[in-house]
Amino acid sequence: MESLENELARLISSIRPADREAMERAEKRQAELAKPPGSLGRLERLSVKLAGITGEVHNDFRNRALLVFCADNGVTEEGVASAPRSVTLAQTINLTRGKTGAAVLSRAFGCRLLVCDVGVAARIREPAVIDRKIAFGTKNIAKGPAMTRDEALRAILTGADLADQAVREGARALGVGEMGIGNTTTSSAVLSVLTGASIRDVTGRGAGITDEAYRKKLRVIEQAVSLNRPDPADPADVLAKVGGFDLAAMTGAFLGAASNRVPAVVDGFISIVAALSAARLCPTVRDYLIPSHASYEIGYRLAAEELGLEPLFDLQMRLGEGSGVPIAMSMIDAACTVINDMATFDEAGIDDGYLDPIREGDAFSVNRGEEGENG
Amino acid sequence: MESLENELARLISSIRPADREAMERAEKRQAELAKPPGSLGRLERLSVKLAGITGEVHNDFRNRALLVFCADNGVTEEGVASAPRSVTLAQTINLTRGKTGAAVLSRAFGCRLLVCDVGVAARIREPAVIDRKIAFGTKNIAKGPAMTRDEALRAILTGADLADQAVREGARALGVGEMGIGNTTTSSAVLSVLTGASIRDVTGRGAGITDEAYRKKLRVIEQAVSLNRPDPADPADVLAKVGGFDLAAMTGAFLGAASNRVPAVVDGFISIVAALSAARLCPTVRDYLIPSHASYEIGYRLAAEELGLEPLFDLQMRLGEGSGVPIAMSMIDAACTVINDMATFDEAGIDDGYLDPIREGDAFSVNRGEEGENG
Repeated sequence: MESLENELARLISSIRPADREAMERAEKRQAELAKPPGSLGRLERLSVKLAGITGEVHNDFRNRALLVFCADNGVTEEGVASAPRSVTLAQTINLTRGKTGAAVLSRAFGCRLLVCDVGVAARIREPAVIDRKIAFGTKNIAKGPAMTRDEALRAILTGADLADQAVREGARALGVGEMGIGNTTTSSAVLSVLTGASIRDVTGRGAGITDEAYRKKLRVIEQAVSLNRPDPADPADVLAKVGGFDLAAMTGAFLGAASNRVPAVVDGFISIVAALSAARLCPTVRDYLIPSHASYEIGYRLAAEELGLEPLFDLQMRLGEGSGVPIAMSMIDAACTVINDMATFDEAGIDDGYLDPIREGDAFSVNRGEEGENG
Repeated sequence: MESLENELARLISSIRPADREAMERAEKRQAELAKPPGSLGRLERLSVKLAGITGEVHNDFRNRALLVFCADNGVTEEGVASAPRSVTLAQTINLTRGKTGAAVLSRAFGCRLLVCDVGVAARIREPAVIDRKIAFGTKNIAKGPAMTRDEALRAILTGADLADQAVREGARALGVGEMGIGNTTTSSAVLSVLTGASIRDVTGRGAGITDEAYRKKLRVIEQAVSLNRPDPADPADVLAKVGGFDLAAMTGAFLGAASNRVPAVVDGFISIVAALSAARLCPTVRDYLIPSHASYEIGYRLAAEELGLEPLFDLQMRLGEGSGVPIAMSMIDAACTVINDMATFDEAGIDDGYLDPIREGDAFSVNRGEEGENG
């Protein structure tokens, strides 16, 4: 049987760069559309990036899925999170019942929701939760590694496998979210190690904790990093030692989306740390990443800069779960309809033939395309 | 027959303030939803504003319309615009054929498009264009008033009438856009007069003009203001003297939306100057204004600050036509689904009953609502 290391290497080697030729064709079409050059701003640039991802100028991503990876993080026993660990389980189940923030937004924006248990610390009886549990939560990173290297590799490959499954089932774009109490702590630890940034510069208050809990969170992350000594050059080692099953599976989902040549929409802080982990395993992944909203978490911007991503919107959201993904999907729809459906200058009849000032009261009708050249 | 002045006064007096009691109920519901307080950021605050507009906590704005007012502006004979005047006519017709930026975005986001000619400088043979023409374009504001006061009042009332019509036909939210070559010049003139800001501080390059044309645009606006001496305390006078039929009708559309108690979505620079004009006629209009994107035009931010509006997104768009409205409508949808469809803490079973740490391997199922109290 193929080793997990080999499987990961094969996944990474399957990822191809963006199609530059398709991007040039998309740029050319944007220049031909009947509008002042660049006047649709980021929608234009987004359409070009999407062309690079699929290799086609005209795309339709209305069949899409949000993958939510759920896991518990042993570090919660240090008291670093505002919510009790049991919330991971409750919200994992509530996601499948369509009642959480990400669930209602996914439904409203036509995003299929795949909820995957990769490490919730309880047996889950809800059949709508996809059971890929690696273990009943990670170990406490303040006292040792979160998981073994094999577990980290399995979690990464599980995320990629979910991406494969979603694409096989028809999704043309994927978003990556999470549910895991304690995962802003692990994300800050991973981000600090991967970038060399100080822990204070990448650590925020998560869902909302007191000053005292915040100071404890900083101390816990410092302890986790100094005790476990993850190797910054080996993202799987970083995820195994100070990450979590949620982060590792999300990292794999980004790799899997890129491997399938579909856009991978990043949610907030935890999601972008997973995206950065994926990009450290395979820099080409960046060609497939689409940002959504700017997260309130302090580390988001650093990770976004490392990845060369500028968030598409800022609604001051910090819910997690992948809740920013559906709105980003609607912006992807906007970019697609512009490049797919707008008239070109030729079709719109706004070319030199129109440059003569019309006289007041002149009757006027525009070119109807098949009737010949522009008016 | 009722005088136009009386009709406008009646329209203004029909506008009621937001329903504070409904807003309090919406705030209360947001606090009960199963999420960290405030974690859905601006979507929460938007849902509260929408409750104030309709008087209901639960709203559905999927039936909506974008009103696009089309007119020519006589000032184009000064050479202040990058596109020839004929583009107003061509794009007015192209809007109804579903091929312009705002048209394709409206279709993609389920927004009905009403295209209204209030002053295009040509007879229009396209029956899909709603004919409410006041005149064949305005006069050149560099040489005299754009229109008579009666024409300005008629244009304002026409805009309000279109809003009435759209609501009668089922729309529950309205957006306000425009097509009118030269209307960034008139908008800068109106904004400067209404706010007292210097012309340079509110004048940008429109769809893209040369340095020389920009200097000319500044001189033309200075001349228009000093020649016509509009009264800053009388918005109808400002619109008549240095505005346009497009701006005046849009001003009326904002009044009409407020009068009908439906949200009025602002597009970019021209739209926000019309919104400000409406708010100067009736400050209560502000309770009904929903921003969309941040416009690139330099005057946008000043007008937004005057109105207390913060744009919902920034895609670096500067197309006009109302092209920012459909995407804002999708954010309105997002705000509605959050407050309508998310579970409360009670329903989600995440309350004190869940605060006991669960043991590894514990089986767990969440409260299914009708089965009784929380788990």
